[in-house]
Amino acid sequence: MTNPFVIIGGDAAGLSAASKLKREDPDRNVIVFEKGRWVSYAHCGMPYYVKGEVESLTELLSLTPNDIEDRGIDLRRGHEVVAVSPEDQTVTVETSDDRFDQPYGELLVATGGRAITAPLDGASLDGVFTMHGLDSAAALRAYIEPVGAAPSDDFGVDYVDTDVVDRYASVEPPETVAIVGGGYVGVEMAEAFSAHGLDVHLFQRSEHVLPPFGDAVGERVANQLEDRGVTLHLGTEVSELRGRSSLEGIAYGNQVQSVDAAVVGVGIRPNTDFLRGSGIEFGETGAIAVDKYGRTNYDQIFAAGDCAEMHHVVTDESAWVPLGLTANRAGRAIGQTIAADPTPVGTVAGTAVVKAFDLGCGRTGLVNENEAREAGFDPVSETITASSRSGYYPGGDETTVTLTADRETGRLLGGSIVGRDRAAKRIDTLATALEAGMTVDEVERLDLAYAPPFSPVWDPVLTAAKVLNGNIPNAKARE
Amino acid sequence: MTNPFVIIGGDAAGLSAASKLKREDPDRNVIVFEKGRWVSYAHCGMPYYVKGEVESLTELLSLTPNDIEDRGIDLRRGHEVVAVSPEDQTVTVETSDDRFDQPYGELLVATGGRAITAPLDGASLDGVFTMHGLDSAAALRAYIEPVGAAPSDDFGVDYVDTDVVDRYASVEPPETVAIVGGGYVGVEMAEAFSAHGLDVHLFQRSEHVLPPFGDAVGERVANQLEDRGVTLHLGTEVSELRGRSSLEGIAYGNQVQSVDAAVVGVGIRPNTDFLRGSGIEFGETGAIAVDKYGRTNYDQIFAAGDCAEMHHVVTDESAWVPLGLTANRAGRAIGQTIAADPTPVGTVAGTAVVKAFDLGCGRTGLVNENEAREAGFDPVSETITASSRSGYYPGGDETTVTLTADRETGRLLGGSIVGRDRAAKRIDTLATALEAGMTVDEVERLDLAYAPPFSPVWDPVLTAAKVLNGNIPNAKARE
Repeated sequence: MTNPFVIIGGDAAGLSAASKLKREDPDRNVIVFEKGRWVSYAHCGMPYYVKGEVESLTELLSLTPNDIEDRGIDLRRGHEVVAVSPEDQTVTVETSDDRFDQPYGELLVATGGRAITAPLDGASLDGVFTMHGLDSAAALRAYIEPVGAAPSDDFGVDYVDTDVVDRYASVEPPETVAIVGGGYVGVEMAEAFSAHGLDVHLFQRSEHVLPPFGDAVGERVANQLEDRGVTLHLGTEVSELRGRSSLEGIAYGNQVQSVDAAVVGVGIRPNTDFLRGSGIEFGETGAIAVDKYGRTNYDQIFAAGDCAEMHHVVTDESAWVPLGLTANRAGRAIGQTIAADPTPVGTVAGTAVVKAFDLGCGRTGLVNENEAREAGFDPVSETITASSRSGYYPGGDETTVTLTADRETGRLLGGSIVGRDRAAKRIDTLATALEAGMTVDEVERLDLAYAPPFSPVWDPVLTAAKVLNGNIPNAKARE
Repeated sequence: MTNPFVIIGGDAAGLSAASKLKREDPDRNVIVFEKGRWVSYAHCGMPYYVKGEVESLTELLSLTPNDIEDRGIDLRRGHEVVAVSPEDQTVTVETSDDRFDQPYGELLVATGGRAITAPLDGASLDGVFTMHGLDSAAALRAYIEPVGAAPSDDFGVDYVDTDVVDRYASVEPPETVAIVGGGYVGVEMAEAFSAHGLDVHLFQRSEHVLPPFGDAVGERVANQLEDRGVTLHLGTEVSELRGRSSLEGIAYGNQVQSVDAAVVGVGIRPNTDFLRGSGIEFGETGAIAVDKYGRTNYDQIFAAGDCAEMHHVVTDESAWVPLGLTANRAGRAIGQTIAADPTPVGTVAGTAVVKAFDLGCGRTGLVNENEAREAGFDPVSETITASSRSGYYPGGDETTVTLTADRETGRLLGGSIVGRDRAAKRIDTLATALEAGMTVDEVERLDLAYAPPFSPVWDPVLTAAKVLNGNIPNAKARE
């Protein structure tokens, strides 16, 4: 009998692989070890749960444990894999009362990432949260709702740490909250807290929020946050979270801002400490190195999701871009590959969108000139603002587009977009152009859709390409 | 002194070319002959003017005659070019009281299209309108507004035929109206008339409205129209418009529907009768044949906009797709080429979007299998419906995507999309994929943007590609 396909981690990548393999080859034995209580939940939905726009935590579960077992997948929650032995083709598993070795035929490492708070002192104080995992989302929502008003969720003891949730539900809700980190989770949490009427302080080390989206997006989002009453502390490094047992203040420079709660999200890191000494190789990014099929340096061991690298379509190098679609797609491809149908995991362009109150923001590829320069390009960049609809048609909004290209070749390297009116998903046009390796010339001549309620004759993306192309001296010479 | 750049037609293509050349080479003499009163107006905005969403007709003018003269362009309205002589490099021009020959250095034919009503008898009755030109939009709006309530526009005698407008403004508004033709103008007009509380009958010869958008879009739009009280007569050929001097009824089969007004839009044709005998060559589509720079068979004569062919990126053949962006882009490129900077006019994918009440619809490339078969492909097609947002995030809507591909090569040939929530402009992703010649495999692996308010993890476009790819037997063999 073949040894099972063993998957470490019961989230997007792991369960996509498990489901795909069981669909293609129902006779294969598939075991998923998940160290936590919950599986297959929508990380990206947590801010909207805290906001109250998503009522129940269970809505964030893509699949319940029962759904997973119905697919014929052997799901073992509360099972932590603590070591991998490629030589023996086994993993070592620990539960609360057991430890055993499990042989595998193929192995998928899909352990995701973990939120990091270091080097910030005080991150373990009561009232400090990382937005990583349903436990913290449940506790934070319980805390900010009025005492007794927290949603009576049906997640039960099996899903979250109800002791912690109950404790936060029983204390007075916070009035002033801090967000450390102005990335997309920070921006989403600012909206979530504002919806509860809290006094929100957002601390961002650099001069702009949403740094990967470029300065133009950062500026519009900053204005939007301030318009909605969020106090921005840009260019500000938080030095310490202060308090005795509970958070009381947040220290920066020579000042201390009194706060009752804080969300700390200075980043995530691949969850791979348990692989130390296994012989599995890591890339320069610190995530697991894989080939185009998601295979590590061991033939039978794959890695996917937030713990693994992907190939970046613009830099043509390995990159670490921990995002949901990447994990789902890579997991699915690996399931298919293991079902004897070799399927590439695809490439990434770093495409992302985020909502900031009523602004939608998108980014893809290399937006910032410095980033492009580091990747070996000679970047040239333009930012334009154009209406999202025909000027005479009501309901349009200013749409700001930044495009970055390589001066020498005219190749599009990346772009960002921000606006209120259907702006964000326009980034997909640029993501597709990046995958195709288009020049700005080619983008300028794309046959995009026009009708007054949806776009001006020249979509803002095309207008940006026209303007940027005019600034690329050799553009014409190449035609 | 060089002979002038002469442009026939003062609309999108012609004025884009004129403006671009004057910007690049301000010393060139540029003459635009426009036979009508108006120039540079937004055809696509007329239904929204009739609806009342656009208040004033002048809002539909992209440029006023003064704007055009400020750009140094010699605009001559009321000047009809009746003949072109490539041998003499002259055009023959008629005005109300004059006829003369004008020499040209280069010539651009940008005469657009004209609405056709043939073979429909009764199209000249009072109360019958074609949505082509500001005169008919002004008259129709005056007719459907209550007596005396028509907007006091400032267009003046110079812009529209005020006698006609005044006559329609003085009679009782219609109660029942017919729309002959369920293309995008027909669908937009249904929305416009409904906004005025009229009893709307839409007649469409084929079984679906919006035929170029494919059956799936046609069905959702038909349901939407019926939900909003529009009476659909699908698969119904109108035989005659009846009345003595004014329209009274519309005859089809053995029946007659009483109506007070009708919009007849069975299509447009290139406006090129005056070129007969000139030696300028036409393509199989009936429009003027041009090369990649928009040049006709005469070196000094260009053609662009609704009177000219374009190269279709999917069929790799000449096509006639009269749409606004095409005209603007081609005109601009020709202006640049004449300014000694040769610039291709680009290709078309037939990308279009249309609003049908609160539905947005998009299409690109070859959607219908028959059309794809005629173009020499072996088409395979799939239609899926998926949510526009993460399931747990409020405000999403079912998004229906149809993709068509070539079975042999897996190449994407076209697609359509329909839904209420930011669906229509998602078509741009597919239009970009078509320009890049992507396979469905490649579309499936596009790194599109995901965040709960904007998309599920797998955008509906990706889900459609996944499903279609599963139905292409050789897809994997090619990888």
